[in-house]
Amino acid sequence: MDVNQEFNKKFREVGVAEFFRKNLQMLGYSGAIRSFTTIIHESTTNGLDACEEYGILPEIKIKIKDIGSSKKSKGNTKLEKLQEKLNEAERAGKPGLINRLKVKMERVENEIAGSSGHYIISIEDNGPGVPSEYIPKVFGSMLSGTKFHRYVQSRGQQGIGAVGAVLFGQMTTGKPTKIMSSTGAGKTSIVFLKVDVDKNSAEIIEENEVESDWKGTKLVTEFKKIIYRKGEQGPFEYLRRTAIANPHATIILEEPNKKKTIWRRTAKSLPPLPKEMKPHPLGLSADDLLRFAKRSNLKKVSKFLQSSFSRISSNRSKEVIKIAKVEDKEPQKLIHSEAERLTTAFKTVKLLSPSTEGLIPIGENHLTTSLKKILNAKFISVLTRKPSVYRGGIPFQVEVALAYGGGAGKSNENGKKMEIMRFANKSPLLFDTGSCAISKSVRSVNWKNYNISDLEKAPLTIFVNIISPHIPYKSAGKQALADNDEVMKEIRFAVMDVARRLKRYLSGMKREAIKIKRRSIFLKYAPEVAWALGVITDKDQEKIEAKLIKIIRTKVKLKEEKEEAEKRSTNK
Amino acid sequence: MDVNQEFNKKFREVGVAEFFRKNLQMLGYSGAIRSFTTIIHESTTNGLDACEEYGILPEIKIKIKDIGSSKKSKGNTKLEKLQEKLNEAERAGKPGLINRLKVKMERVENEIAGSSGHYIISIEDNGPGVPSEYIPKVFGSMLSGTKFHRYVQSRGQQGIGAVGAVLFGQMTTGKPTKIMSSTGAGKTSIVFLKVDVDKNSAEIIEENEVESDWKGTKLVTEFKKIIYRKGEQGPFEYLRRTAIANPHATIILEEPNKKKTIWRRTAKSLPPLPKEMKPHPLGLSADDLLRFAKRSNLKKVSKFLQSSFSRISSNRSKEVIKIAKVEDKEPQKLIHSEAERLTTAFKTVKLLSPSTEGLIPIGENHLTTSLKKILNAKFISVLTRKPSVYRGGIPFQVEVALAYGGGAGKSNENGKKMEIMRFANKSPLLFDTGSCAISKSVRSVNWKNYNISDLEKAPLTIFVNIISPHIPYKSAGKQALADNDEVMKEIRFAVMDVARRLKRYLSGMKREAIKIKRRSIFLKYAPEVAWALGVITDKDQEKIEAKLIKIIRTKVKLKEEKEEAEKRSTNK
Repeated sequence: MDVNQEFNKKFREVGVAEFFRKNLQMLGYSGAIRSFTTIIHESTTNGLDACEEYGILPEIKIKIKDIGSSKKSKGNTKLEKLQEKLNEAERAGKPGLINRLKVKMERVENEIAGSSGHYIISIEDNGPGVPSEYIPKVFGSMLSGTKFHRYVQSRGQQGIGAVGAVLFGQMTTGKPTKIMSSTGAGKTSIVFLKVDVDKNSAEIIEENEVESDWKGTKLVTEFKKIIYRKGEQGPFEYLRRTAIANPHATIILEEPNKKKTIWRRTAKSLPPLPKEMKPHPLGLSADDLLRFAKRSNLKKVSKFLQSSFSRISSNRSKEVIKIAKVEDKEPQKLIHSEAERLTTAFKTVKLLSPSTEGLIPIGENHLTTSLKKILNAKFISVLTRKPSVYRGGIPFQVEVALAYGGGAGKSNENGKKMEIMRFANKSPLLFDTGSCAISKSVRSVNWKNYNISDLEKAPLTIFVNIISPHIPYKSAGKQALADNDEVMKEIRFAVMDVARRLKRYLSGMKREAIKIKRRSIFLKYAPEVAWALGVITDKDQEKIEAKLIKIIRTKVKLKEEKEEAEKRSTNK
Repeated sequence: MDVNQEFNKKFREVGVAEFFRKNLQMLGYSGAIRSFTTIIHESTTNGLDACEEYGILPEIKIKIKDIGSSKKSKGNTKLEKLQEKLNEAERAGKPGLINRLKVKMERVENEIAGSSGHYIISIEDNGPGVPSEYIPKVFGSMLSGTKFHRYVQSRGQQGIGAVGAVLFGQMTTGKPTKIMSSTGAGKTSIVFLKVDVDKNSAEIIEENEVESDWKGTKLVTEFKKIIYRKGEQGPFEYLRRTAIANPHATIILEEPNKKKTIWRRTAKSLPPLPKEMKPHPLGLSADDLLRFAKRSNLKKVSKFLQSSFSRISSNRSKEVIKIAKVEDKEPQKLIHSEAERLTTAFKTVKLLSPSTEGLIPIGENHLTTSLKKILNAKFISVLTRKPSVYRGGIPFQVEVALAYGGGAGKSNENGKKMEIMRFANKSPLLFDTGSCAISKSVRSVNWKNYNISDLEKAPLTIFVNIISPHIPYKSAGKQALADNDEVMKEIRFAVMDVARRLKRYLSGMKREAIKIKRRSIFLKYAPEVAWALGVITDKDQEKIEAKLIKIIRTKVKLKEEKEEAEKRSTNK
């Protein structure tokens, strides 16, 4: 076998779409339940990102139609009829007909077997819309989009997710995705498209434009090989958590059983738009720096450093260049060893911590309102920590909430269980819990110190959200945070802080219970004591009793709400 | 903000190389130890694949040079000299010089700090070489190669690994990779190249051709941010296991401390070349079938099915088409619903199991020799199971070996520990052990039934290799097998089989120990008994003793080797 001939014959280049077609698990499409949640996740985050960027209060509508089950019941009816015909044919002794009927029945049976896990999912947002000439790129071509190179806190990043869902739909059903989009100029584009896997570009099946007043984007895709489950890792829970972390969004879900759930926004204003940040020098590798330098159109390294990175003043820039012994030449001409010396020099000068104006937390007020409404817990405490920095240059911020009692925690047949709700840039993380730095941080706290003797069985919901322009994900699946000391420390401290408040609440509850018991004993004997005192002092027993009760109530004072509750019950 | 303007301004397309540059962890580059092993893995597997394909007995030479540590010691010498100068300057009271010296010292200190984890790795194979015009593609352009579309048992698949290593080298050091390659025509190409991340193509830095008799491929790359460790997940262990599973290969490693290890081949012939297999219909999705159909140049669906897939005869093909109610038209004109009906129809007809001629195990003989040489265990048992099928259509085969005592198991300060050596298509899997179906299958066996009371502490090496044209990896990291019932059952059964043999060996050992004790007691008293009998019978005591000993030896027979050992010790 000649190697030259072999190469000439077999050498091929493969497109990125074909690569991901073969490696769908990289995009979150592994398993029927996870795949479903991935689909919902991709469209929801795109909708939220787009609305926020254009100052629109988001409203996301998701409708899930189970066409598999209707096919199934139709199939069963058909099967019954065929069975009747078969019985008849057998009575009449028609072997040809019998055979034909049997083949037919087998086909219907196969159709029924193949119809489970077949859905139509439509997802609509009221966002800015996608300009019609960009629709094929945005939904039909991987690794294209507006977000890849921006250093900003956002949910999506790579321009793969939306196309991945279109691809998964067409791979499992052969059907194109229907995209309706309008930027609000009175016209709506309606495009049916598939991904041309070989070319990594859209294959337009049909294209129309209609007059309309509507604005937004709506995707309708048919899927197989997915299963709708209402469990912890399903779409319902995903959206419920999205609603909690995004109190400015209204989310409407119609489930396969036609049940509609509306999570209405509890915040009437949008969060501030996160600013695009310049990267901080301490978060940079030499290779990063060189790539920025190549794209710069400035004439001097000093100007380039100053304009490309945060916290670099003109003086600081010159100082760094001097320490690194780098000539103040055109940045495009920097070589790797110079870039290395520059990144080393950054570490020897004093730099302010990264700017954190790009970090927009949910905020304590919004989160409290949101949790109160959705969890209906007895105790809620929310804490937003100050922004911090990991790897020396990447800003991040942690928000934590603790909800106890009432609707908090997971319910199962054995009562309540603790639940950890993990979020990254306000998007829920539902998979790979065990290996996530958030869960590890929460479990690393000694909960016994906070009057929680068995964490796993406590009626607790622990909410953790981390925001950053660069979330330190463990893998491309974007479902778990990597172990990072700085991040884990922040989460741990935040959780300990709210746990301290819970402890106060729990011991307050205990003290209160003792007081209530004491008071009820005093009150029980008040009439008798008043009668005895009346006899002894020969004063009005009723007045004595009234005074006694007043004294008891003053000395053994309950919390306000309890006090009122008691009064109400006494007045009855 | 106008959405049209925004899109015009910000919309970008990103190349696949840029995507992986941002997601290096997808290629195995996460953590300094894992990254090192990934580099070694990529080149070694490419070398082995190429040699085998062209019928060459592989010899892989790996040389690792720690240039960080030499830089470090040079830096320390420099630092000492500067310190002397500084002392002098301070004595002489020269503030200008003092400052300059301090700045210099700081730079050297930073250099020293930055020099750890800096290596030059060279990997050479004696394979067929890469034709010079393909060198830029093979090593500088992702998703290109000769393997992507082939359905054959091989180590590499996607045409990403080699380019990933070049990219990781240039990202951490800025240096190109030096590639020497010759197809044996008397000339060697020497190319220095980098990956142009924006274009996903090679950036040639330098290119030469020299006369030479050598044939093969050699890569020399400089890396930072990696660490050489001799632990369980390091390059040494990776290569040791590669040598075990590839007895036809010679592997030579020069470690950073200049120590050379040679694993010489124990098999003098190459394993048969795995044949490229046609996919079996039961392993196909409708989308797969359509993609094959699109590429077919045949005129009829029936011919297409017959020629593209295994186990489809002309009659079977017509039968399937009839059941699926698909017209026998041009395969390019098939639509998704027809493809779905065809895949359903495949399930209703009788098809032979997939051909397994493409599966080439290591083989019991080769594996035994290899394990004996490398592990030096007291007991070794090897089993190659018959080929089997998962997901209805994907052939696979399991090989298992058990080594006990002697050099088997892992050694640590507390004695021995059990070790599981996992392989897929003869490549070692070193990471993500806990979540791998191989480890799970091994641990699911009830080892107490096989006289192993505590599996984890047994002096055991359990070797498992699975071969298949499509290994069911859990993720793109290719380090763990997904839970798959058929595969796990096969592994479990194979392990139980060799464990049964181990049990026999172990109880044999126990019986033998008892026998040895009995015999030694008999032998101890033989002279006295002989003396007593001599006195009683008045016969020659020496003759009686000799006969007695002979009787004891016959009645209480040891295993041959013990017998000989005893004889030798008696003869002394």
